[in-house]
Order: sequence, then C-alpha cells, then structure tokens
Amino acid sequence: MSDSKPHALDLPMVDPLPAPTQKYFDICLDKLGMIPNVLQSYAFDIAKLDAFTALYNDMMLADSGLSKLEREMVAVVVSSINKCYYCLTAHGAAVRQLSGDPALGEQMVMNWRAADLDARMTAMLTFAEALTTASAKTTEADRQALRDVGLTDRDIFDLVSVIGFFNMTNRVASGIDMRPNDAYHAQNR
Amino acid sequence: MSDSKPHALDLPMVDPLPAPTQKYFDICLDKLGMIPNVLQSYAFDIAKLDAFTALYNDMMLADSGLSKLEREMVAVVVSSINKCYYCLTAHGAAVRQLSGDPALGEQMVMNWRAADLDARMTAMLTFAEALTTASAKTTEADRQALRDVGLTDRDIFDLVSVIGFFNMTNRVASGIDMRPNDAYHAQNR
Amino acid sequence: MSDSKPHALDLPMVDPLPAPTQKYFDICLDKLGMIPNVLQSYAFDIAKLDAFTALYNDMMLADSGLSKLEREMVAVVVSSINKCYYCLTAHGAAVRQLSGDPALGEQMVMNWRAADLDARMTAMLTFAEALTTASAKTTEADRQALRDVGLTDRDIFDLVSVIGFFNMTNRVASGIDMRPNDAYHAQNR
Amino acid sequence: MSDSKPHALDLPMVDPLPAPTQKYFDICLDKLGMIPNVLQSYAFDIAKLDAFTALYNDMMLADSGLSKLEREMVAVVVSSINKCYYCLTAHGAAVRQLSGDPALGEQMVMNWRAADLDARMTAMLTFAEALTTASAKTTEADRQALRDVGLTDRDIFDLVSVIGFFNMTNRVASGIDMRPNDAYHAQNR
Amino acid sequence: MSDSKPHALDLPMVDPLPAPTQKYFDICLDKLGMIPNVLQSYAFDIAKLDAFTALYNDMMLADSGLSKLEREMVAVVVSSINKCYYCLTAHGAAVRQLSGDPALGEQMVMNWRAADLDARMTAMLTFAEALTTASAKTTEADRQALRDVGLTDRDIFDLVSVIGFFNMTNRVASGIDMRPNDAYHAQNR
Amino acid sequence: MSDSKPHALDLPMVDPLPAPTQKYFDICLDKLGMIPNVLQSYAFDIAKLDAFTALYNDMMLADSGLSKLEREMVAVVVSSINKCYYCLTAHGAAVRQLSGDPALGEQMVMNWRAADLDARMTAMLTFAEALTTASAKTTEADRQALRDVGLTDRDIFDLVSVIGFFNMTNRVASGIDMRPNDAYHAQNR
Repeated sequence: MSDSKPHALDLPMVDPLPAPTQKYFDICLDKLGMIPNVLQSYAFDIAKLDAFTALYNDMMLADSGLSKLEREMVAVVVSSINKCYYCLTAHGAAVRQLSGDPALGEQMVMNWRAADLDARMTAMLTFAEALTTASAKTTEADRQALRDVGLTDRDIFDLVSVIGFFNMTNRVASGIDMRPNDAYHAQNR
Repeated sequence: MSDSKPHALDLPMVDPLPAPTQKYFDICLDKLGMIPNVLQSYAFDIAKLDAFTALYNDMMLADSGLSKLEREMVAVVVSSINKCYYCLTAHGAAVRQLSGDPALGEQMVMNWRAADLDARMTAMLTFAEALTTASAKTTEADRQALRDVGLTDRDIFDLVSVIGFFNMTNRVASGIDMRPNDAYHAQNR
Repeated sequence: MSDSKPHALDLPMVDPLPAPTQKYFDICLDKLGMIPNVLQSYAFDIAKLDAFTALYNDMMLADSGLSKLEREMVAVVVSSINKCYYCLTAHGAAVRQLSGDPALGEQMVMNWRAADLDARMTAMLTFAEALTTASAKTTEADRQALRDVGLTDRDIFDLVSVIGFFNMTNRVASGIDMRPNDAYHAQNR
Repeated sequence: MSDSKPHALDLPMVDPLPAPTQKYFDICLDKLGMIPNVLQSYAFDIAKLDAFTALYNDMMLADSGLSKLEREMVAVVVSSINKCYYCLTAHGAAVRQLSGDPALGEQMVMNWRAADLDARMTAMLTFAEALTTASAKTTEADRQALRDVGLTDRDIFDLVSVIGFFNMTNRVASGIDMRPNDAYHAQNR
Repeated sequence: MSDSKPHALDLPMVDPLPAPTQKYFDICLDKLGMIPNVLQSYAFDIAKLDAFTALYNDMMLADSGLSKLEREMVAVVVSSINKCYYCLTAHGAAVRQLSGDPALGEQMVMNWRAADLDARMTAMLTFAEALTTASAKTTEADRQALRDVGLTDRDIFDLVSVIGFFNMTNRVASGIDMRPNDAYHAQNR
Repeated sequence: MSDSKPHALDLPMVDPLPAPTQKYFDICLDKLGMIPNVLQSYAFDIAKLDAFTALYNDMMLADSGLSKLEREMVAVVVSSINKCYYCLTAHGAAVRQLSGDPALGEQMVMNWRAADLDARMTAMLTFAEALTTASAKTTEADRQALRDVGLTDRDIFDLVSVIGFFNMTNRVASGIDMRPNDAYHAQNR
C-alpha cells in the first residue's frame, strides 16, 4: 500500500481483505492513485469500515441540495477549527480540486473569513463555526438564518450532518494520530 | 408514535416505512416502550437511518474491551461538555440503568469529577474530555496513559470512536433541536 | 444525621450544637426529611453558619418580584455553567418540585436553551449566563433588556444577587467537595 | 454622603436609616473617611445590608489562619480575573495599606505572577485562580497542595470562602455598575 | 542606572554605550527621571534597540489623527487583556499624566467598560479588544464601525498599529519578565 | 505592481516612491518575483515602512542562534493560532522553501503537533504557543525549559522577539485585511 503506517495504533488491516473490500480499495487506487489512510485505519475490522464508509459516502457523495464543493468547504472549516491535520490535508485538496481555485482551498484551511464568499456560503460557514464551537447555543434563529439564504429543511439536515461528521472524524483522526497520504500535499496547487 | 415532533425541521418520516424499518421500530416499541426520537429523526431518509444505526449499533453494542456501561459513561461525559439535552437525557438514563446507580448517572451529567471512579475510568474520562475540548493537542503520551491503565490499542480505538461519535451526534441533536422522548426522565431513578 | 461525610475537609460540626441551631436542624429534618449537607458543612463554626443562612434565606425565600421558582431556575443555570454537583442536585430538585415539571428541572441542569421559556425567563437566564461567564462586559444595555421584559430595578438587584450567590456557593461546594444528600436524586421525578 | 450615585439602579437608601445602620455608617465615615459605596448600595433594604455585612465581616476580619493581607491579596486576584472595577479599586487600596508596598497592590491588580511571592502565597493564588476559572475541575490534589504549604483544613475553608465571596461580589458590583468611592485611588501610593 | 535588573535574561547592556544611545538615555533621565527599562532591555544590541525605538516613536509620538492620549488608552486596554505588568504600569501612568484623570488610568487598567467614554473612544476600544482576542474574525463591518465614528482610513491604520504593537510588546515583556521602573507607581496619582 | 489591492484601506503608496524604497522594491521583484504586499501596505508612509522593515529584517534575517527555518516555523505556528491568512500564506511558503519539505510547511499551518520534531523545536513551539495564548502565565520555569534544550539567553530573546512580532503583524494583517500575493500559493509544493 502507499505511504507508511496510517496511524499510531497497532491495529493491522485484516489480511487478506474480504473480496468486496479489496475491490473497493482497488477502485480507490485506480481512481485516486492511493487508498486513503482513513480507510486503511478502519480496515482492521470490516464491520467498522463498512459502517464508516456507508455513512461517509451517503453524506458527502449522495444527492443533496448542497453541492459537493459546499460540503467539502464545510468539512475543511470544521477541521480548521479543530486543527485536524488529516482532514485539512485530504479535504483541503478536495476543495482545491472541486473549485479549481487553490487559494480557496488555502482560505478554508487558514481562515475562511479571508475568502470572498456569497451570502449563502457565508451563512453556512457561520453556522458551521457556531455548531462546532458552541453547539448548545443553537436556536431557531440560527436555522432561520439558513432558510433566509435559501436552504430547505433538508439542506439544513445535510449541513448539520456534515458539520457533525467532521467533528467526529477530526477527533478520531487526532485521537489515533491518523496520517494523511503524502500525495495530497501536491495535488491541484 | 410517542411524544410530539421529534425535532425542529419539517422532515416527516417516510410513510409507510419499509418493512425492515417498521420491524426495527416495532422491536424498539416492544423492548424500550418507545421509538427513540433519534431514529424517528433520521427516518425521513432510510439510507441515512440505516447508515446511522449501523455505525451506532456497532460502536455501542458490539463486542469491545470497553463494557457497555463504560461506553455510556463516556457518551454522557462528552455530551455534558457539549451540553446536549437529547444525549444527556437518553444516555444519562442508560448509565442509571446499566449501573443500577442513579447518582452515578447524575454525576456523569453534572460533573464527572464528583464521582468516585477507579484509575481506568478516570483515565478514560480524562481522555474523553481532552479529545472533546482540544483534540489537536493529543499526543502519544495521552494514548500511553490509557495503555498504562490496561487499555489495548483496540480498546483505545473503541474509546476514540465513542468520543468522536458523540461529538457528532451532540451537534446533530443541537443543530436540529432533537427532543428526547419524555419517558427517559423518570427511568431508573 | 443523614448520609456520610458532607465534604472533604476535617471540620466536624460543633458538638453539641447551640440550641437555636439544633432547633433549626430539627425543623429541616421534619420538613425536608434531611439536614442539607450545606448546613452541616458550615456547622463547624456557628457564626459562619448563621451568616450564610441569613444571606441565603433572605435571597431565596424573602419577598421579591422574582418568584421562588424563577430564583431556583436562575440558581440551576448558574450552577450548570459552573458544573457544581452539589447545587445542581439540590436546586435541580427544587425546580422539579416548585414547577411540578421534571423535564424543566432537567433542562435547567443540562441546557436551558432546550426549554420552552417566555421572554421574561429567557431574558433573565441570558443575563445570568452573561454575568456568570463575562461579568466585566455587563453594560446598561443588559440591564435595560431586563427592564424591557418587565423587571423593576429592585427585581434586577434580586436577580443579580441570586446569580452572584450561586457563583459563590458553586465555588465553595466544589472547593471543599461538598456532597449532596442522597435523597435529592429521587425527588419529584 | 460621599461621591455621586453608588450604582446604576434606582434604589435609594432607606431614609432615615435605622439607628444601628446610621451608627455603623458614622463609624465608617470617622475611621475610613467615607462610607464605602458597597454599603450604600445595599442600604435600600436593611435586612440585605445586614446579611451582607455579617458575612463580609466574619470572612475578612474575623480570626483566621489567613492574615488580613493574605485575604485581601486573594480578593484582588479573584477580582482581577473577573475585571471588577469596584473590588480592584477598594481592595487594591487595602493591599497597598496592609502591606505598605504599593507595587504589591499593583501586581495583584495587574498580574499576580509578576510578584515575588513565597510558596504559601503562590499556592493560595494558584488555587484562587483555578477555583475562579474552573471550579468543577477541583480535586483532592488541589486541596493537598494547600496542605503541603502549611494550610490546615480550616485555613482551606477560609480560603475557599474568600474566593467564593469575591466571585459573588464581583458579579454583584458589575451587575449593578457599582462605583468605587473616589478616595480609594490616591490611598497609600 | 535606576532600579534593579530590568528583566530575567542575562543580557547586559553594551558597555560603553555608543554616543547616540548614551545621549538618548541621558535625555530620558533628564526628562523622565529614569531610563525606561524597556530601553535598557534592548540595549544589549544597539541594532535591535534602534529598530524598536524607531517603530515605537513613530507609532506613539508621530502626527496622527489619534491623539497621544487615545493611543495610550488603546495601549493600556490591550495590555489589560494580556495582563502585562510592565506595560500596564508604564502606560497606565501615561494615561494618568496625559488625561490628568487618575481614575481614568485605573479604569483602562482594570476594566475599560467602567469608564464613561464617548462613542469614538468606545468604538476604538471595542475594536482593540476584538483585534486582540479574536483577530481572525475581523471583517469590513468592524472597520466600518470605526469610520462611522469619524476615523479615516489612515486613523484606522494607526489604531491597528498600536493594537498590534502592544500585542507584541506585551509578549516580549512577559516573555523576558521585564520589570517596570519603580517610579511609575506613584506618578500622577 | 503585482496582484490587486494589497489591503482594505484606501491608503495608496507614495507616488513616486523615494529612490531607496524604489530600489528595495526592485530588488524584491528581482529576487522574489514580487513585491510582498506587506511592504506595499506600509508604503503610504515611508517612515512607517522603514521602521517596519528595519525591525523585521533584523529579527528574521540577522545572525541568531535560531536558524532562519526555526524562526519561520515559529512565525507560522504563531500565525496558525491567530489564523492570519496573510502570514500563513507567506511564511508557510518560506518554511516549505527553507526546509525543502512541503509537508512540514503544511503541518506548521495546520497543527504543529502533527510534525515529527526534535526536543529543541518542540520546546520552542510549546513556548510560542503558550506566549501567544497566555503570555501573562509565563514563569521562569518556561524560560528554563528552553535553556534545558540548549537555548542561550540571547536565543530566548530572539525567540520571544519572533513570537511577539508575529502577534503584532498577524493583527495588523487581519485588521486591514492584508492580501497575500497570489504567487505564494504554488511555491515549493
């Protein structure tokens, strides 16, 4: 596989991998040129890997009123607050790729307020910051601010899901010192 | 179904529910006397519900070096930091039930340092607090402190997963104002 | 007396208690079924006990534009911010008793924004939170917001007094590890 | 009386004052050259004034293992964290007077770590800072650190009381915009 | 020279001082009655001393739409947030001197919101507090709030410079334990 | 000149620039391929520009026990805490260039604890983080920890200077919305 040890724990991948997992990893290698270390990290237990990928893929890739770029921008802003090296590296690359704008990716990593964003994106990132740092203070007024820039209730659910998910995965990555694949750094610069 | 609207968004459950979902909900009603509102909240989209429950059930109920009570105590301490009304209510009840000690449930909700805990549990909750409030500062020394009280690397993964998960679900619950079922309040007092 | 050692310091109660103190404690036992541990904690020095109870009783029980329930709700919200196990237990029970609404007590303990409150109570708890966490930023606009929901200047003084008092007693209780009487946990559930 | 309006609320002093209160205020004028505004602030209700002064006088002036200067230094450090203009002014002057060291008073107001203190005072101020900013994290180890520099359990109670009290009165003063008497500023410079 | 060791590092002044430096220090002694310890602290390296004084003198003393008193008030408020003993002592004295109002100096040191300020000064100190504690959240709206009370863009630059400078020098002073000259304490009381 | 408006204020550069300034800018263009926007930002007032560059050049480029790479790493870590888009962009590029290690630059931007650093660098960044976030808590023990990994008192001064400087310039950049030159983003990837 690519790179060195994917994290700090002594939890080797199942060997051999079950056929569906091996096939999924082969597709990653083919399409991305790597098997993301987050997948390798969960591959010591296939039930956990499958549960993680099902949730992730539904949230980040399934149909939604939020574009994939919007979801990735939210992911990076949450990860910037939590200073998660893995997620900033991997999803910062995704923002650069999906937007075709390397500076935008850097702004999401470094300070989203430095970016020139429209009212919709500003509202979503304002909400993401608040839900990440002070979730208990959320009120109906915060949800209404999202509706005011055009989000439906389903869009709000999807936004909340992405914010929640990266608050989980940022902590999993930092908790086990998950290492990003080296290839991300040079992508789409 | 039980109680009133499960959250603040206008996202009604799929109607009729698919047979496997209906069966799952019927089992909940039979065993718990209610369908937890978190399940009703995701039931507007069965793929999301299934992804959530697969992850949740694997993490909280599957075999682990961490007992179910230990996992619930971690869940409540994370939720106490994030002041999540839904999770404190539902999982506070679980701590009361699993421990048979109502005061212990209250201590996890109110201030875990007020409880009389052994070194293993103290180490786990210390780690949970740190990973929740300052995940980026996690170092190998923090993981070693868990090994020093007997956790294996697999146990550390499971602990990190629970901490991460409740940092997600606390924000989802607060983000959509998820309401706990009324029945939790009086349970196991 | 009820329960075990009321706190972590080696400061036994005066023995025998002076007659007025013994009478006061007997009334507590008769009316409450217990002598609250906070009273036992101060009873190593009767002058301190008397000063504490005089201040407490005037503040929480004397006539005021704030109802006893309102004062108890403020007390619990302050104690929730400071995560004081003693005060959350004792005054959480008081909110459940005075309101007849167990869920309301839990909401004050867990996250007051989860409760369905009118403008007056919301304004008081918003002020309580601000004065607890950032007292130096208080300005005339904060006092005016209280007048705008109907509080008189005397009401504001009483509100400020309760907020101040629990910021004191939360720290006294945590500082000496004051233990709540066991009986509180099951009351008014 | 001295100075202008003692605080921002419209709560005039009882007029005429009861004889014992008038006598107490006359003594203040005679000994201090002023009636401290905190007393004038409570004098709209003599029961509240008496309860406050009883608690205050017992805590700051009665016999204790902590010297009056030590208690005033703790008072100022707590007030510095809470940035209470009234208490910093009045009790900063007290530290200058009791110590005969104007720079020491300034250090307590500005940053106590800038002062050259012995282990006992350092331990007390470290505890005061912790109990003020994160009371819920207090553990037996914190109390033991005080015993290790010679405090008895009674001394710890007295220390906790002073810390608690100023966390109350800082908030009362900021909550009602209590104004310090002008005379404090030039005292003992 | 005046006072004792100016800071905690073993970095003695160049000896003998170059003629221009000696002349500058002589002027200080003549006009201020002391050589400020900040100058003595940098005098181990004349290039560093000259760079520091050039920046300082241009910022605090050169022509600006901000008066010298305004700049000193901003300096003290920034230093109060950072609790810098050196800067609070030296620049607190400067506010007392330039304003002729000892209480104003104390208010800037203790809690600027306790002062009775006009809209222009309030806006500048609000901005100073925000840029000191959360610089990354600055937006155009914050700059506009300054323009709304009459600041030009050049004034804004000068304000930002002072805020930035004291965030530097507060950390330099605390980092090396720079000691204020004793004479400041009694000045202009 | 390169790029668009260097910041949000209406403060055009002196036109024409004085000969020495023009020469300096020409050298920048020749050696760096750009005139850093920070220089353009100060060029509305040549005295301010000269004071800034004198301080900057002495601190970052003059002889020191700290290597240029070490100083740049400290600069980026401070800027990461303050989330300064300008400084993270410009000095992140400098770390990539001086180290020849693109991942190291990203780690300093994202989370320095993710990097594999020796004891000396870890001690310097630990100190930088502490002095940036809680300068008033600095004690002799913090300076000793630097001496323990080999820093001289002069090295400590230089370290403190860099930390202080970026706490200044981060706030200047955020205060005026200084924009980094576009060219930095792709450098040394």
